[in-house]
Amino acid sequence: MLEVEVKAHVPDFGEIEVKLSQIGAEKLKVEHQKDVYFNAPHKDFAQTDEALRIRKIPQNDGSEFILTYKGAKLDDSSKTRKEIEVGVENAENTAAILENLGFKPVQTVKKDRAIYLFEDYIITLDQVYDVGNFVEIEKGMGEGQDYQDILQDIFKIYRKLVIVVGFERRSYLEFLEI
Amino acid sequence: MLEVEVKAHVPDFGEIEVKLSQIGAEKLKVEHQKDVYFNAPHKDFAQTDEALRIRKIPQNDGSEFILTYKGAKLDDSSKTRKEIEVGVENAENTAAILENLGFKPVQTVKKDRAIYLFEDYIITLDQVYDVGNFVEIEKGMGEGQDYQDILQDIFKIYRKLVIVVGFERRSYLEFLEI
Repeated sequence: MLEVEVKAHVPDFGEIEVKLSQIGAEKLKVEHQKDVYFNAPHKDFAQTDEALRIRKIPQNDGSEFILTYKGAKLDDSSKTRKEIEVGVENAENTAAILENLGFKPVQTVKKDRAIYLFEDYIITLDQVYDVGNFVEIEKGMGEGQDYQDILQDIFKIYRKLVIVVGFERRSYLEFLEI
Repeated sequence: MLEVEVKAHVPDFGEIEVKLSQIGAEKLKVEHQKDVYFNAPHKDFAQTDEALRIRKIPQNDGSEFILTYKGAKLDDSSKTRKEIEVGVENAENTAAILENLGFKPVQTVKKDRAIYLFEDYIITLDQVYDVGNFVEIEKGMGEGQDYQDILQDIFKIYRKLVIVVGFERRSYLEFLEI
């Protein structure tokens, strides 16, 4: 699955939440996410622009865990990249398998994420611990499709939210490593 | 988790099933297992004696999938080794993540497995496609413990089943690669 995704750094969410309500975006849920990123034994993901992480999302009835691989970004204006996810039973054994294969945990990213749906776009408001506040707009698409139309729509939605500056291709991981 | 495990190659299961019944072993279940083994991009698991696999176990209500790492065997008489397992949501995305990290699927092992419990030992009768019939007796133990007592008990159980030859440290994978 390719993820077409654009991120913007914003000072706060006050005005943006008002605009989301005005355009009719539906607030789906709010969750806490704790992501542990790993680096590889045979290459440096910081150089290859790949990522491997285990995400923990605490729920009322136990936590959800997701293993995710992200490929290198495909263009200069967005964060479009291959993204493959699979739910896993727990984080501890998943991390132990990765570590025994030679992967090393390198960084942890914690955030509170509010997730909205607008048309078929996912809009997230991320309050990232020790990094700042970000808005992400994304949509998944099949591999091989042209994503310029989706990118244009994403920037249209940003204009509806009166966000015209602060666009950011760096990951939260890269922010934490500065 | 360390798995203390001894395997024996047998001509058939007829007599063994009778003995299992006589000693009071409890038949827990019968299942089909399809295992896809992967090799690593940065080392050759055939050399390091490690293994990485995705197991699919078809169930009535959808399949179960397990990702497993096995470390090198620790002695010359058994298959005792570190084993780490985690349930995963599906095989397709798990394999796609591994392949994007550079791991390659190298072999598939299919078998029908009958699983028995005797005291706190697991006894399995494996009919491995294109390989043959095998009995495995195993028990998990914490790391750092001495496993000689467990090994002795395992060989006692083999004697109860009148299995005294055919002990085998090679994996099904290694048999298929001959």
